[in-house]
Amino acid sequence: MLVRELGEEKLVARMLEIFAASGEGLEVPAGDDAAVIAPSGESSVWTADMLLEGVHFRRGWQSPEELGAKALAVNLSDLAAMGAKPAAALLSLAFPPDEEVETVLALCRGFAGAAAGFTVAVAGGDTCRSQSGLVLGVSAMGTVEEGAAVRRSGARPGDTIYVTGWPGRAAAALGLLEAGESGVAEDLRRALAAPQPRVSAGAALAAAGVTAMIDTSDGIAADLGRICRESGAGARIDKDTLPLDPQVEEAAERLGLEPLELVLQGGEDYELLFTASEKPETREAVDRIKKESLNVTAIGKVTEPEKGMVLAADGHEDTLSVKAFEHFK
Amino acid sequence: MLVRELGEEKLVARMLEIFAASGEGLEVPAGDDAAVIAPSGESSVWTADMLLEGVHFRRGWQSPEELGAKALAVNLSDLAAMGAKPAAALLSLAFPPDEEVETVLALCRGFAGAAAGFTVAVAGGDTCRSQSGLVLGVSAMGTVEEGAAVRRSGARPGDTIYVTGWPGRAAAALGLLEAGESGVAEDLRRALAAPQPRVSAGAALAAAGVTAMIDTSDGIAADLGRICRESGAGARIDKDTLPLDPQVEEAAERLGLEPLELVLQGGEDYELLFTASEKPETREAVDRIKKESLNVTAIGKVTEPEKGMVLAADGHEDTLSVKAFEHFK
Repeated sequence: MLVRELGEEKLVARMLEIFAASGEGLEVPAGDDAAVIAPSGESSVWTADMLLEGVHFRRGWQSPEELGAKALAVNLSDLAAMGAKPAAALLSLAFPPDEEVETVLALCRGFAGAAAGFTVAVAGGDTCRSQSGLVLGVSAMGTVEEGAAVRRSGARPGDTIYVTGWPGRAAAALGLLEAGESGVAEDLRRALAAPQPRVSAGAALAAAGVTAMIDTSDGIAADLGRICRESGAGARIDKDTLPLDPQVEEAAERLGLEPLELVLQGGEDYELLFTASEKPETREAVDRIKKESLNVTAIGKVTEPEKGMVLAADGHEDTLSVKAFEHFK
Repeated sequence: MLVRELGEEKLVARMLEIFAASGEGLEVPAGDDAAVIAPSGESSVWTADMLLEGVHFRRGWQSPEELGAKALAVNLSDLAAMGAKPAAALLSLAFPPDEEVETVLALCRGFAGAAAGFTVAVAGGDTCRSQSGLVLGVSAMGTVEEGAAVRRSGARPGDTIYVTGWPGRAAAALGLLEAGESGVAEDLRRALAAPQPRVSAGAALAAAGVTAMIDTSDGIAADLGRICRESGAGARIDKDTLPLDPQVEEAAERLGLEPLELVLQGGEDYELLFTASEKPETREAVDRIKKESLNVTAIGKVTEPEKGMVLAADGHEDTLSVKAFEHFK
């Protein structure tokens, strides 16, 4: 059945059914003019991200459930990078009148499923018509102890630079899908289609007093550049220490790219890139995260700002430039 | 200059300049992974609304500044309908690479100007490419005393039904613009292009203990229907009491419509529709709002649910049906 056949009111009623269970903790749940969240005594951490069909995703790349879950995940990733505990989310959906009802409901189920997995209340949102294609606008809110949010600006010379996971997987999958290649390894496809926000790692790292943190939505080089700029620092990445998934290596070969290009410049990984001073709490937090099967790798050091960003190997250093995806070019 | 010529990073830097002053009250302002708002001790009230070019607006109907301000206003209107005091907002913007930089910055200035007018901190957001047309995704947050948010569900038989302003103005303007008519009266055009969220009225009415409140974004009939459904009540609107702006009457004549059709069924007015019991606090709040030059009209009574919604005139009653705009048909 198409959306225009069912009509807005019945569609919204079915969406609210999907979200009902997840709104139980709210003072006023979805369905009124606005949702109301009882005071937590902590600071509110708040972010928004929009996903557009044809720009951020194509239909064949993931199921509608995965897409709904990803729309929430990219927002929770921003909260994780502040060290916040997610609490609630809003979903605004635009779609054409000839969209399948089942697609819209599957998006909502994916969103609600991811929300349940992270104990996030779906607090409402908005549906409207688009002229073509899906638009998913998500806003997510979390809580953090007052003054304890981890910013991008706290990196200091001497701090170690770490990254979680296997960066480059999402870019490898994107490259293969855009090239029309079949047989994309499931680990790579899932990195792109169903990224896992590093929520518990982010909270553990914040509690351990890491100095700066960001999620790698635009790739290690671009996002490390942001930490350096905001912190007034430089950075040296040690080439040999970079985590290189053999599946990323194989994809790079098929695409005729340098594997480390994917690791350093590839976006959409939603891993955590952070800096920390050498202290027991950092090591303990890193060890704890590794025990939960999430890779964490020390990849370099924060330096004085005049050093800029460099990639070091075999005793010499090259400038590490940012070749990140430019949305408007 | 076009957006693709300036590039994303420089554009975002100029947007952040526009928003910088308005973020001063935040614990972490725009520019990090997420914004942080210090605890207020009150409940958070939270809403989101998306505006799409070609669906919610066309370029010629308003200036980019007005459009930016309206994107915030429609969200503040939802907060006002809960009786909340607005605190912060996020703006997600999507536009094609060949968009004029000046248009994007003008949108941001309009948004920032409206935010300043309501003491709202612009807490960040997101920019991305669209394949065609502008998309404005806004989320707004406010505060209200715990348990004091005004819901749609509190209307009780015997309560008086009130509406602010001159409903029908926005629909009159939309009708004339869509018909290609020139000479749209400025009061009508501004109702559509530059609606004023009833923020202080909403807070005053909440403090006076009104029983239910909603903003009339879909028209009096549709939004009163929501109050009736959520409250388990019926409603009688007294036709002769409906506020009829002579400019709406004139527009209806030009459009070949019944004037009251615009008043009752026209959307996009963002006035407050509320119900209240007869008590001195209600009268005092209504009088205070009127003194601030905002019209408030008693238009009927809440009734028992089995009565349904009716329009009463000359001693007989007709069913008041909802002919609201259906987004997906």
